Amino acid sequence: MTELSKLSAAERATLAQELQARYDAFKAQGLKLDMTRGKPSAEQLDLATKLTVALGEADYKSADGTDARNYGGLDGLPEMKAIFGEMLGAPAAQVVVGGASSLQMMHDTVVRALLHGVPGSKESWGRGKIKFICPAPGYDRHFAICEHHGIEMITVSIDENGPDMAEVEKLVASDASIKGMWCVPKYSNPTGTTYSASVVRRLASMKAAAPDFRLFWDNAYAVHDLYEKSDELANVLSACAEAGNSDRAIVFGSTSKISFAGAGVAALAASPANIADVKKHSAIQTIGPDKMNQLRHVRFFKDYAGLVSHMKKHAELLRPKFEAVTEIFARDLGEKGVATWTKPHGGYFVSLDTLDGCASEVVKLADAAGVKLTAAGATFPYGKDPRDRNIRVAPSMPPLAQVKSAMDVVTVCVLLASLKKLGA
Amino acid sequence: MTELSKLSAAERATLAQELQARYDAFKAQGLKLDMTRGKPSAEQLDLATKLTVALGEADYKSADGTDARNYGGLDGLPEMKAIFGEMLGAPAAQVVVGGASSLQMMHDTVVRALLHGVPGSKESWGRGKIKFICPAPGYDRHFAICEHHGIEMITVSIDENGPDMAEVEKLVASDASIKGMWCVPKYSNPTGTTYSASVVRRLASMKAAAPDFRLFWDNAYAVHDLYEKSDELANVLSACAEAGNSDRAIVFGSTSKISFAGAGVAALAASPANIADVKKHSAIQTIGPDKMNQLRHVRFFKDYAGLVSHMKKHAELLRPKFEAVTEIFARDLGEKGVATWTKPHGGYFVSLDTLDGCASEVVKLADAAGVKLTAAGATFPYGKDPRDRNIRVAPSMPPLAQVKSAMDVVTVCVLLASLKKLGA
Repeated sequence: MTELSKLSAAERATLAQELQARYDAFKAQGLKLDMTRGKPSAEQLDLATKLTVALGEADYKSADGTDARNYGGLDGLPEMKAIFGEMLGAPAAQVVVGGASSLQMMHDTVVRALLHGVPGSKESWGRGKIKFICPAPGYDRHFAICEHHGIEMITVSIDENGPDMAEVEKLVASDASIKGMWCVPKYSNPTGTTYSASVVRRLASMKAAAPDFRLFWDNAYAVHDLYEKSDELANVLSACAEAGNSDRAIVFGSTSKISFAGAGVAALAASPANIADVKKHSAIQTIGPDKMNQLRHVRFFKDYAGLVSHMKKHAELLRPKFEAVTEIFARDLGEKGVATWTKPHGGYFVSLDTLDGCASEVVKLADAAGVKLTAAGATFPYGKDPRDRNIRVAPSMPPLAQVKSAMDVVTVCVLLASLKKLGA
Repeated sequence: MTELSKLSAAERATLAQELQARYDAFKAQGLKLDMTRGKPSAEQLDLATKLTVALGEADYKSADGTDARNYGGLDGLPEMKAIFGEMLGAPAAQVVVGGASSLQMMHDTVVRALLHGVPGSKESWGRGKIKFICPAPGYDRHFAICEHHGIEMITVSIDENGPDMAEVEKLVASDASIKGMWCVPKYSNPTGTTYSASVVRRLASMKAAAPDFRLFWDNAYAVHDLYEKSDELANVLSACAEAGNSDRAIVFGSTSKISFAGAGVAALAASPANIADVKKHSAIQTIGPDKMNQLRHVRFFKDYAGLVSHMKKHAELLRPKFEAVTEIFARDLGEKGVATWTKPHGGYFVSLDTLDGCASEVVKLADAAGVKLTAAGATFPYGKDPRDRNIRVAPSMPPLAQVKSAMDVVTVCVLLASLKKLGA
């Protein structure tokens, strides 16, 4: 196929007519397909069916003798801390296990900093106007935390190695009101990017005007590989320590897309000073998280190796869906010069870039044909994609056949919107 | 027995010698008894053993078809909301189910108000200096939330009907910086007080200088009766609505001392405006709480009646311990004129008042004899009991025989400290 921009006006008009006919045919089918949700499918959840029954009636004691049914245990059971320690790259002593939601742990870490600052702060972050660096496209819920709490977001671009480090270094070195940066360092949401070793090293060692600058390191997809060979992510806590910035990174993770998305276990890992700070604040907030659910997870996975091996079953279910998306994109959009897309090795999303100014139109067209896509702009701070080109595709939840049907519709929508833009 | 103050100096000296001998004998036994913790005993937790296995492998769908394993459901499963609605006195639609900790819901409600205000606020509470009314003796973790976040605490006394309402009304009407008041309205921690209908009505209808004044209504012991006949607590949400102050109260509760203290379910209930506000904020904080644990609780209790009937089994275990405490107090301290104590109909504590200035000494003496009591002062704001007389006794956790042994020691310590105070 040729690039659309190289077709004559007459050829484009003919193509547009053909596409419109196909689009109308899709519309007539009354499809109801939802590609918006980065949620595991029922089949993936079924992989952990035995988690529900992993604890017997009399099974409530952790290895250290703690009765998991009773109050206490602010930072989690030792066995659970050990598993998260390996997942997040820290000694178990530098792990705090929370409830079911790592988003909540991130949110609460930001809130505590707003009210009380963090180790190294001269005053609470909420005393002045503060800013966060937001690599984009990125995760809308990170951006929502900033927007909700009045934290100004500075967008930086992200390429196949991670955020634009020249830009990040310049900003962070020169502006002391920049207190934080959101990072999804492995299989980034939505681009699938894994930060290169050099990017991790530069983030850990760059000069920061704010002495209490923090990397909010959301390692949501630490073990969420689609292929046997995993992308390698450098250990940010070690890199920060080596650079003399031990307290710079706070690492978050959970079993949400490993066991049950709504009933997993979340944790954070950080330097001893940060951990002491987190514990000081969380001791005021709660008597402790649900230890029975921790014990249930420990019994089910046994250890970190068991958890990693469990993820291979997820990969078997997810890989065909991801490959269907990228294969249909290649088949229908390849060499047309109107779109690029990612081919991630893990994570939960494929990121599609259309011609500038076309993403909203594609989402609108798809919606009218019964295919729900994530709102255009959602992957950018304030919900505004300056180039209106990024679309986040979430193939995990629907069955494979539906993923294929949906993508058949989406590519037609992309071509139609592109032709309109090119003047068909 | 006679009042100690009416004994002659010689009689007191003799008594002191006898008591000292008994105290030394206790000390020689090398006791290790802990009366500090308001935690359920292992036997109480065993009552809910079947909770752990209440969900079968394929049991993960709520009545409305929600897959409890997956993301979503910010305010809880309908069945769980219905149970808490009955417990907390609100329609299910006015309930938000949280994670495992009602303390966390209270803390987070305070934090949200500090950062964003509440419905009716002109600005966020954190913009100025704010104050909370704290009936005392009260719950140390409530006071810790205030102290941690720089909220000034104003202590008011509490009698058998509840807080000193004349004082509360005067303060709240005259000081717009008073934004909140902590209330444990039923079987109050530690006095066992249930607020009278008149107190509830006055709290609901009193004039507040701050238009966004809130009652933080911690109904922690809503169903925690020791006897067949429960203390009656008026519905504060109805009372507020009737008084034209619909948004005044936020009611909190949990199953922590009903099912598992570390792995229960927590919830809040409030007016539609407050609920909408809570949801707006919590949608930023989390994708949703653990719905599998909610479903587990729904299967185990079936409904609110099932939960209430379960509490009768707790009462069977707790009642003898509470009665042992008050019987030993009556036996050893009755008519001595050196102590008063509560005889609660429910809840988790017996509150003991010594002569002014003696509580610290009693706690110290008991500790030296191997009996740990809650630190003197812990039941007051800033950990300072102005009269140094209140001691919180927590009989739930140790076996009955240990409760008795501990109280045998405590009464000797009270008498010794009293004699010292009276000048033995």
